[in-house]
Amino acid sequence: MISKVKNAMSNLVGGMMPHGHHHHNHHSGGGQNSGQEGLPHRFPYGRPDFLDLTPELLQYSTEHASRPVVTLKRGTRLPWGAGYAEAINAGKSMLNEDQASCEKLFVRKPSSKHRNSTLVDDNGDNTGIPLHFWGVFDGHAGSGAAIMASKLLHRIIRDGLGEICHLLENPNSAPPICLAKNGSPFQTEAKKGGTQDSAEDADAVCDASVRFHMEKVVSLESLVMGVIETAFKQMDDLIEKEKTSYAISGGCCALAVVYLMGKLYVANAGDSRAIIIRNNEVIPMTNEFTPESERQRLQYLGFLRPELLGNEFTHIEFPRRIQHSELGKKMLYRDHTMTGWAYKTIVEDDLKFPLIYGEGKKARVMATIGVTRGLGDHDLKVYNSNIYIKPFLSCVPEVKVYNLDENKHGPDDVLVMGTDGLWDVTTDKEVAEAVSTYLSRCDPSDPMRYTLAAQELLMRSRGVLKERGWRLPNEKLGSGDDITVFIIPLAGHESET
Amino acid sequence: MISKVKNAMSNLVGGMMPHGHHHHNHHSGGGQNSGQEGLPHRFPYGRPDFLDLTPELLQYSTEHASRPVVTLKRGTRLPWGAGYAEAINAGKSMLNEDQASCEKLFVRKPSSKHRNSTLVDDNGDNTGIPLHFWGVFDGHAGSGAAIMASKLLHRIIRDGLGEICHLLENPNSAPPICLAKNGSPFQTEAKKGGTQDSAEDADAVCDASVRFHMEKVVSLESLVMGVIETAFKQMDDLIEKEKTSYAISGGCCALAVVYLMGKLYVANAGDSRAIIIRNNEVIPMTNEFTPESERQRLQYLGFLRPELLGNEFTHIEFPRRIQHSELGKKMLYRDHTMTGWAYKTIVEDDLKFPLIYGEGKKARVMATIGVTRGLGDHDLKVYNSNIYIKPFLSCVPEVKVYNLDENKHGPDDVLVMGTDGLWDVTTDKEVAEAVSTYLSRCDPSDPMRYTLAAQELLMRSRGVLKERGWRLPNEKLGSGDDITVFIIPLAGHESET
Repeated sequence: MISKVKNAMSNLVGGMMPHGHHHHNHHSGGGQNSGQEGLPHRFPYGRPDFLDLTPELLQYSTEHASRPVVTLKRGTRLPWGAGYAEAINAGKSMLNEDQASCEKLFVRKPSSKHRNSTLVDDNGDNTGIPLHFWGVFDGHAGSGAAIMASKLLHRIIRDGLGEICHLLENPNSAPPICLAKNGSPFQTEAKKGGTQDSAEDADAVCDASVRFHMEKVVSLESLVMGVIETAFKQMDDLIEKEKTSYAISGGCCALAVVYLMGKLYVANAGDSRAIIIRNNEVIPMTNEFTPESERQRLQYLGFLRPELLGNEFTHIEFPRRIQHSELGKKMLYRDHTMTGWAYKTIVEDDLKFPLIYGEGKKARVMATIGVTRGLGDHDLKVYNSNIYIKPFLSCVPEVKVYNLDENKHGPDDVLVMGTDGLWDVTTDKEVAEAVSTYLSRCDPSDPMRYTLAAQELLMRSRGVLKERGWRLPNEKLGSGDDITVFIIPLAGHESET
Repeated sequence: MISKVKNAMSNLVGGMMPHGHHHHNHHSGGGQNSGQEGLPHRFPYGRPDFLDLTPELLQYSTEHASRPVVTLKRGTRLPWGAGYAEAINAGKSMLNEDQASCEKLFVRKPSSKHRNSTLVDDNGDNTGIPLHFWGVFDGHAGSGAAIMASKLLHRIIRDGLGEICHLLENPNSAPPICLAKNGSPFQTEAKKGGTQDSAEDADAVCDASVRFHMEKVVSLESLVMGVIETAFKQMDDLIEKEKTSYAISGGCCALAVVYLMGKLYVANAGDSRAIIIRNNEVIPMTNEFTPESERQRLQYLGFLRPELLGNEFTHIEFPRRIQHSELGKKMLYRDHTMTGWAYKTIVEDDLKFPLIYGEGKKARVMATIGVTRGLGDHDLKVYNSNIYIKPFLSCVPEVKVYNLDENKHGPDDVLVMGTDGLWDVTTDKEVAEAVSTYLSRCDPSDPMRYTLAAQELLMRSRGVLKERGWRLPNEKLGSGDDITVFIIPLAGHESET
């Protein structure tokens, strides 16, 4: 049993998809791992540490025939008492390519000892500003990128916040525009208003006073957003850099929830989703980034940099492929500036494959990938070509802020975050109803209640195995994808020790 | 008096701004009219035809000291009984650079007679699908582009709709993806399902059936949107083309409301605004396009095409100008991917002027222009340089649709559209309250009621001249800009003959 897992891991952690169609990737892996053969893995395959799975349970978790719902063990407590559940896909990849992480960390000034060795553990040092982190990472074409992000993204964010720690400690003052090398606020001579002697200096004063008059006020909140946005870029750069030494397969969507100083920052790059349920009402906290939602951005890049399309694709969208016999006819199209459709006369160039093609979950960038933001994918190419997809992908999340301290929350008010396996078959409203109903019937003192609610959601999306596949109670198809769910109680931070 | 107007016109219609600071243009005209000296004007300066001003009234309308409110005459009826009012600026340009149009037209198949001479008058031929049009055009650096757009945009839209007239006449069928040259739906052999003999043809069938399986359904509504988006581009191209033969000064924001077959299409390119007031509630129908709202689009272009920045500007945003003495320090910045702010070490390149600079109404693209969408501006350059602004501007509107037939409207339910002169000093809510209050007190049978309400709005935004300038009742500064307002009763089309 264990050796089977070991074999599966050594065969698959490198990231080739074992068989067939993949939700995020039309072709099976293509040039994803060029040159990675023989390199060691950056992190071994496994499930999140907080699940604390034995090798037997790890093996059990990979069974596609039963798709067991793996939850937090009774007795394990995540920060805020958050609940967690996951299940593997119905067979599209041998391992579960979703990953998750949940951490409590502390933001501190970088010590001289660690200044050049970041990303270290806290090692039990509980001084500093507390930071809570929950992340879900939906991998594709391998689990390498998702695993690495689940191990490191929260630390990169913590270290980024550490760099501005001295500003976070004065939350009521606007961050200074300019910092000296030692990190303290830096003002030019002119701003300080010292006496000036020479004519040149007098000019400088005049100039500076005009300039500083137009200074923008930057909030601490937007500084934290900037740290998180930058951290996603650093994470992506690190994956690229370490690919020269390690096998890090595929790419992943990344959804991170960061709690810092009374506010939740929800950062999303990909098609995972988070909602807040408050008083049975839904507050969406993310937008999905897909070929359809980001069509104009991608088309604009293809328009400005046609060489990235490798003479194989056109940035113009058509409602279907054009046939050679249709040359000279008029066809509906949309370019990067349009939302509506108009007719254009078909020319030779329009016979190329459209950059964005397909609808809904089947929409693809260059016939290859169905999400447009995330981490990794540096080697991803169009099948049988030398055209890289990465320039069209963005690793930068959209960050939304929820002011936790400004709102009152009961024990049934939660944030639900999950990979698309959850949301593809269950709407926001259905999730909210299921969670609210479940929690209202639950013993309010049961420490497992949020995990049980997560398990309930997971079952609803996975369904049960019948003769004709995984089916929901209404006989519709359940999700065949990996599914991962966190349920975070919003009143949870009040009870935190 | 009249000769003074004539002089003013012949001097100014060319579009140089006579004095001082312009809201949309930091520098006074710059290279806007290079090479246009001596060319005839495309259209003479004037106020909208429907105002039917005598030369004396035209002169009177230009008095900056009194800023008379010019309204529709009693006895003139616009389509739907819409109301209209306008006032000139407080002195920033000699002429009123706002323009407006209001037309009822008919959409017909292009006749063979007119196929090569579009943009003609309807000449009293009332056959075809009725189309109603209201437009406001806020010019800058001259009135040429605004006047030309007010004369022609509605005709370009009508002619574009004429091209798809045979589809509009079958409103319940989805528009065909492909049209033959004669405009009739075109299906390839494969789609028609004729018998196929050769192996090659059999392949084609197979291929085609897969392809057509993925055909997108395009709605008639998105086809009308496509016509409007395309019409704005055609209008912009026409201005550029005719500049070789005529003096067409400046550029303009364009806001157009099109009524066709039960729906209102609100198309906006610039910082004008339209709202619907229904049951005293506000439904925003436009977003403004400014350096702040379009920051990331502009920065992305500067990042991908740095040559457009002419080695003078940086695409990175800073909260204020950087001084030479700050080289090597850390400064807050945002690039095209970021919403939050982060610190970066200042390098030589960061000393360049930021592509986007300033806040709110003072934000500018390359220190030159405060709006990022509109028509014209083809010759606009950064002051004292050879850097063109046009690549950063978009002429494409955002189109929102309001289904008029699906909602019941009372006589106080209206669409208010106006240039930024109105909205800069009056919020959506204040406009809605003022209009609702005014209309509820008005004689419902007075044909002037919407014009009187427009006049009321205009007075509220302009204020009255006191010792310290134009002041609102609360002593705040009134708008010193040109102001133009339409109030369109949403029940108006029901009473239309």
